[in-house]
Amino acid sequence: MLPVLYPPVLISSQGFTFASTYRSFFTNLKAGMITLSSPDLFQQFRNEMQKIADFRYASAVLQWDQETYLPPKGAAMRGRQVATLSETAHQAFVAPQLGDLIHALLDRSDLTLAERRNVELVHEDYLKQQKLPSSFVRKLAETTQRSFHSWIAARKENDFRLFADDLNILVDMKRQEAAMLGYLKHPYDALLNDHDKGSDTDLLDALFSDVRQPLKELLDKIVASPEVDDSFLRQHFPKQAQWDFGMQLLKDLGYDLEAGRQDLAEHPFTINFNSNDVRITTRIDENDLSNMVWSCIHEVGHALYEQGLPESEYGMPLGEAASYSIHESQSRLWENHVGRSLEFCEHYWPLLQQYFPSQLGKVTAEQFYRAINKVQPSLIRTDADELTYHFHVMVRYEIEKKLIENSIQTEDIPAYWNEHYQRYLGVNVPDDKRGCLQDIHWSHGSFGYFPTYSQGSFYAAQLFGKASKDITKLPELIRNGENQPLLGWLRKNVHQYGRMYKSEELCSLVTGDGLKIHHFLDYMLAKYSNIYQF
Amino acid sequence: MLPVLYPPVLISSQGFTFASTYRSFFTNLKAGMITLSSPDLFQQFRNEMQKIADFRYASAVLQWDQETYLPPKGAAMRGRQVATLSETAHQAFVAPQLGDLIHALLDRSDLTLAERRNVELVHEDYLKQQKLPSSFVRKLAETTQRSFHSWIAARKENDFRLFADDLNILVDMKRQEAAMLGYLKHPYDALLNDHDKGSDTDLLDALFSDVRQPLKELLDKIVASPEVDDSFLRQHFPKQAQWDFGMQLLKDLGYDLEAGRQDLAEHPFTINFNSNDVRITTRIDENDLSNMVWSCIHEVGHALYEQGLPESEYGMPLGEAASYSIHESQSRLWENHVGRSLEFCEHYWPLLQQYFPSQLGKVTAEQFYRAINKVQPSLIRTDADELTYHFHVMVRYEIEKKLIENSIQTEDIPAYWNEHYQRYLGVNVPDDKRGCLQDIHWSHGSFGYFPTYSQGSFYAAQLFGKASKDITKLPELIRNGENQPLLGWLRKNVHQYGRMYKSEELCSLVTGDGLKIHHFLDYMLAKYSNIYQF
Repeated sequence: MLPVLYPPVLISSQGFTFASTYRSFFTNLKAGMITLSSPDLFQQFRNEMQKIADFRYASAVLQWDQETYLPPKGAAMRGRQVATLSETAHQAFVAPQLGDLIHALLDRSDLTLAERRNVELVHEDYLKQQKLPSSFVRKLAETTQRSFHSWIAARKENDFRLFADDLNILVDMKRQEAAMLGYLKHPYDALLNDHDKGSDTDLLDALFSDVRQPLKELLDKIVASPEVDDSFLRQHFPKQAQWDFGMQLLKDLGYDLEAGRQDLAEHPFTINFNSNDVRITTRIDENDLSNMVWSCIHEVGHALYEQGLPESEYGMPLGEAASYSIHESQSRLWENHVGRSLEFCEHYWPLLQQYFPSQLGKVTAEQFYRAINKVQPSLIRTDADELTYHFHVMVRYEIEKKLIENSIQTEDIPAYWNEHYQRYLGVNVPDDKRGCLQDIHWSHGSFGYFPTYSQGSFYAAQLFGKASKDITKLPELIRNGENQPLLGWLRKNVHQYGRMYKSEELCSLVTGDGLKIHHFLDYMLAKYSNIYQF
Repeated sequence: MLPVLYPPVLISSQGFTFASTYRSFFTNLKAGMITLSSPDLFQQFRNEMQKIADFRYASAVLQWDQETYLPPKGAAMRGRQVATLSETAHQAFVAPQLGDLIHALLDRSDLTLAERRNVELVHEDYLKQQKLPSSFVRKLAETTQRSFHSWIAARKENDFRLFADDLNILVDMKRQEAAMLGYLKHPYDALLNDHDKGSDTDLLDALFSDVRQPLKELLDKIVASPEVDDSFLRQHFPKQAQWDFGMQLLKDLGYDLEAGRQDLAEHPFTINFNSNDVRITTRIDENDLSNMVWSCIHEVGHALYEQGLPESEYGMPLGEAASYSIHESQSRLWENHVGRSLEFCEHYWPLLQQYFPSQLGKVTAEQFYRAINKVQPSLIRTDADELTYHFHVMVRYEIEKKLIENSIQTEDIPAYWNEHYQRYLGVNVPDDKRGCLQDIHWSHGSFGYFPTYSQGSFYAAQLFGKASKDITKLPELIRNGENQPLLGWLRKNVHQYGRMYKSEELCSLVTGDGLKIHHFLDYMLAKYSNIYQF
């Protein structure tokens, strides 16, 4: 599910530091910059950014290969090859030469709006990277490598304590990172801002406080209602038929298979090397049809966004997604608002029955619709339904916030986790593996990522609401399998802008209002009151 | 067939020149070098070489992807990503910092033999690269890009003249390159030396003069003999069965599929990212079984060599193949001496009949053996049998030599080609597509490559002869499918040395004698007098 959006910039402990050697060359260049016309200067800047992009995306190709086709013994050397590319990209990005180009361009008043925005955004990223000393970045990379392995070991032994020490060091470094990056009110804000610019604890506290109670009440009502039968989803669904159906879905949703491909991998993910090469992966569980189908739709939502980013802005911020939240809004919009709608089920019903006649022959489209929307409090986030999902996120958000502000310690995590799963979802966490060890994120140093999953859902609801107003008879179009109008709407209203706007700004621009939670809550209520008939 | 052995170092026209900026940093480092112990200094050298290797092999991964899984629209950006990596590898290699390390190491008397050899070989490569100005390398890369496209266009239109102008520029640049690299007698020697150190026109003129007449006489005898029936090879052989049989072959021959993989591609090739990740591709023609089978064996011969290179020498010359000729000797040895032997056919006969009962049910192993060794003068090099193959090479060798020495011009190529195909092979070349436009090499700037194909065959015969003496009952082992003794022999006598020795030195070390053509001629005569019964 985790989209690999911006191939992570890692630092290996090997090799030379290029950065410190640029100075003399660029002192000369700097003198020359003054005489360059703005278009020429901007072209130099673009060349340099595209070159850095080449390293980042080459590294991404190596990572894609690692997750799909790499022979087992190739893993060791692949690690160092990826590290070298990532290090080179990082060093080129923090080099004074780029700073000089940025500063020279910031002084120019004759840039186009798009050019200026590109320069400003790179400047922001540049200043941010400059705040983190190379020694710190390197140590962080080493620490996450180590903690990834101890997380693996802890999962294997089903014992959080094997992960706790490394996690502790990592949390401490994340506190340091927050201090270096700077923040106004809460140290966690610095990390949130890193995933979604402008996001902070005030905003998220308010959002989660607005949804917690209404969702809990809705959940209680659902739990008190007669259970939905979804047993037919867990029959035997042959691998090849699932694959073929998934490929058909991708095409129907508008994914350009001339500019992308799908492969099998252990975990579904989306990865992009430029807007003409955006790849997704899926996995197939022969005993569970829904696993593959909605992961396909989710990933293709990410991929449609990447394919829709302006090709001409390769290597530039305007060629990148707005934020993790907006990225997630695209996957959730397709996965939930389209893919889990009754109209979508009706459209695909003949085809599904054709692919799986013995399994689904006696089921109706509506029974299927109810089954794939069944709400059931559970232990694992990635298996959760649309409603309970947000309680999973809330637990993680609260823990991250408290860890970073130092009000709980890593050893307190399992107890906090288990208590809140009981409180929010009424489930008993039997062990750490199905509890606080289930996600890769922390081992990877990703703090501030989880909230974007919920924000993505909330943005999705508001965006889809607006699309439903702008596009005549959208449900009917979906029932007819006509997805192009919605994709066109997203291309025009979201994709084309790249990183031009912050999440909130984009939301306002498109919907006329900042993120308002009632769009999501209304959607939830309408959906489940229909399915559970209350 | 073309193995991608050393991912070609290309230069793009974009980006900054890093090299000129190293100086100040390395002036300081150089002062520090004096106080470093030899092991520490060598470790710095190794680090730098491994880093360069990371770029080269990352670029190779991108090229592998390009030939196997790249979505069509991804090609444009992939080109620039590969160019950036290649340029970075090249710039790091020609940077003064590496020169300083090399010179410091050359002064040390306490290196191990392997360390010293690595330093010397890198020094050679370094000096060679230094001889080519960056502007020249860049122009050469641009020219080959252009001429590759005009070659494609010329093939499409079946008209050599569309390629002639660009080829002319390229040939002229190759003459310049020869002058820059330097040579003792003939300018073509400089280019030959680039593919096989020590190889020159004297040596090749002698070799080809030694084989031309005997092979021609043998061919005349064969053509006068009753034709061998190979019609059963061109029935319908289903794709999946061919693939499965090919995979079985790879395993049986000792290819480690934990450290490699096979995929489909338009052209069979071998590519390596380190000795633990060596990949091959094949193609399947459902109307021709032999196409897939012997291309599999050929490529796996290359791959076994790469998998057998010392893992600990990653990034160093001793971790690389000895030469193009020796590389080709490994593929030819397995393809011809093993794969086209009667014993091999006998071993696989039950399995082949099992895979293709209706196609091969009434054929005997010996009939099959004769069919796959059928000699038939033909137009296309890659389809040629073991004997006539060398006439294809001779024509190309003569043309290259004459072009570089300026005794013929590019516009003379078709006439020279067609005349010599008639003279050597007795075939009429109907058009340029099936004539002088058939190979990619020249469009790619590869002059001096073709002769290594013949040299490879000649070395293969001599090496296999020695192996047959050293290994008790080798034919019987092959008949039993026991290939490990032969692979072990090659590992010990060839693979383990990497680039330690030149082709001729290695040949002498292993067989007690430099390359002698009678090994190959004796093999040819024995084989065909048996098959054609004269």
